[in-house]
Amino acid sequence: MGGDNAPGAIVAGSLRAHRELGVHVLLTGRPDVVRACLKEQGAEEGPGLEVVDAPDVIPSGAADPARAVRSTKGASVSVAARLVREGRADAALSAGPTGAALAAGVLEMGRLPGVSRPAITVVLPFPGSPKVLVDAGANADVRPEHLAGFAVLGSVFAEVALGLAEPRVGLLNVGEEPGKGNELVRQAFPLLEKAPIRFLGNVEGRDIPAGDVDVVVTDGFTGNVSLKLMEGFARFLMGQLLGVFSASDEARAALDVVLPGLLELREALSPEAAGGAQLLGVRGVCIIAHGSSSAEAIFAAVRVAAQTVDAGLVQRVTERLSGGGAS
Amino acid sequence: MGGDNAPGAIVAGSLRAHRELGVHVLLTGRPDVVRACLKEQGAEEGPGLEVVDAPDVIPSGAADPARAVRSTKGASVSVAARLVREGRADAALSAGPTGAALAAGVLEMGRLPGVSRPAITVVLPFPGSPKVLVDAGANADVRPEHLAGFAVLGSVFAEVALGLAEPRVGLLNVGEEPGKGNELVRQAFPLLEKAPIRFLGNVEGRDIPAGDVDVVVTDGFTGNVSLKLMEGFARFLMGQLLGVFSASDEARAALDVVLPGLLELREALSPEAAGGAQLLGVRGVCIIAHGSSSAEAIFAAVRVAAQTVDAGLVQRVTERLSGGGAS
Repeated sequence: MGGDNAPGAIVAGSLRAHRELGVHVLLTGRPDVVRACLKEQGAEEGPGLEVVDAPDVIPSGAADPARAVRSTKGASVSVAARLVREGRADAALSAGPTGAALAAGVLEMGRLPGVSRPAITVVLPFPGSPKVLVDAGANADVRPEHLAGFAVLGSVFAEVALGLAEPRVGLLNVGEEPGKGNELVRQAFPLLEKAPIRFLGNVEGRDIPAGDVDVVVTDGFTGNVSLKLMEGFARFLMGQLLGVFSASDEARAALDVVLPGLLELREALSPEAAGGAQLLGVRGVCIIAHGSSSAEAIFAAVRVAAQTVDAGLVQRVTERLSGGGAS
Repeated sequence: MGGDNAPGAIVAGSLRAHRELGVHVLLTGRPDVVRACLKEQGAEEGPGLEVVDAPDVIPSGAADPARAVRSTKGASVSVAARLVREGRADAALSAGPTGAALAAGVLEMGRLPGVSRPAITVVLPFPGSPKVLVDAGANADVRPEHLAGFAVLGSVFAEVALGLAEPRVGLLNVGEEPGKGNELVRQAFPLLEKAPIRFLGNVEGRDIPAGDVDVVVTDGFTGNVSLKLMEGFARFLMGQLLGVFSASDEARAALDVVLPGLLELREALSPEAAGGAQLLGVRGVCIIAHGSSSAEAIFAAVRVAAQTVDAGLVQRVTERLSGGGAS
């Protein structure tokens, strides 16, 4: 029920994942609404495509979606997370507000042993230098030991999501030298050095797109600002570029030539296409899709959910935390 | 003496500003080195073009340039700042490390009454929606009242730099609603509401390029990460774009058509062209040019220094702080 295009796009994307990938889908929401939506799209409940009753709906535009999730038990995102806790589902997916998905994931699934702060990870799909950003917005205020925990979560996630044996981890800072930065990162630095990760040291903002690390660790405030800044800046530059290409007939003709390449580039840079955000450190796979997700984006997110389950992410995080400490 | 291309580019850019704009230039540094450099460029000392002895040189790559400035009195950036304090110069300009310029500005010029934390402001020259970002890196750890002070400094700066009567000020946050964010910004929000500025509320990362505010207020850690992220992301996208344009002969021909427009766009987006960074809240104009500044960039920075002096920025900041409080 969550998301700008819910339930239509959610149902459409899930339905496609069910049909094309054979994913077993449980749609949580108001049964009458979801069933009507399925019917509209020429489908109906059956084996591998179930509707699960979630009686409560958080009004879109609720001032505090996280609080709404905590005060009701029957929101679709809460029911989805509960299905994972009960072993009836392997992953939960929501396109509702991030705060709501975060609250539902933590409350309903619970935290893994050794995790004090679950974090949001996102794959930044830069061609040639993809990155994992952690925390992308779950924790606005953190302590140094939380950053060390995020580093471990992000490192295991990068193994799975980017297929790396030993991901290179960097701490986001205002300079490269140890000793740089605010009190938080200065205190976190030695903790990351001791964590069971391949820690390369500090990285700067410019290293997020281009640097020689695979995982960028930061607090949820800086991470969320950075993520939205890239989103806004990419959109802004695309707009400016279109301005350059509409300056003359010749330029418009040039656009025709390179447009497919430009659209491909835009697609390649989209975190949605890379599977959106994941909540790490909880007892299950929890995917947080963009609020504006299209059916296409939901399909991609369901595929990532299935891949993440198949790769045994939660088990791997659990093992790393019990073996190496540091979270 | 500071900067990747010092002293050649510094002397060349200043010389051009002296000749074309009639700016009275005092070059601080090792006299033998600076005079040799002037000679190489076909110029010599004379009225309006002076060499001032600064015997100490901070080694490039010094681990802590700010400490180096504090422990010596004769670095070129310190001498430049002292000339302003002594009334012998109207503005100081450095392309050396930001930390060094910051330390020299604060120590040698001193803070304005009512300013507890000077801040670095930078103009982000987005075509159609230029912004002032404050603090861009002077203060990694701040308290809520410092953010309110930055807001006043940034607002007066936007009046001068962007020519606005009542700049719209936003507080950088992870969501628009009051109550969002970390403890710092939640506590700062009501202080900005009471400050003598036109405060519009919270803005998000995506609003830095495109939002409807003129001034974005943040702590120096988040501001510095954001600034360098944009720098790196723009460079990364330009590289990707060149890839698209080299995919075929047709695409290469298309590039020829739009290249002038693209270069213009890149130039328009360059904070250097907009005059680089300024240290606000000290008793004088203090410009911090990019370390990689070319002669062109130094020329632009000298011009901005002269314009800032002519606009009476320091006087205006002083008046606002004595009239309106809040810093």
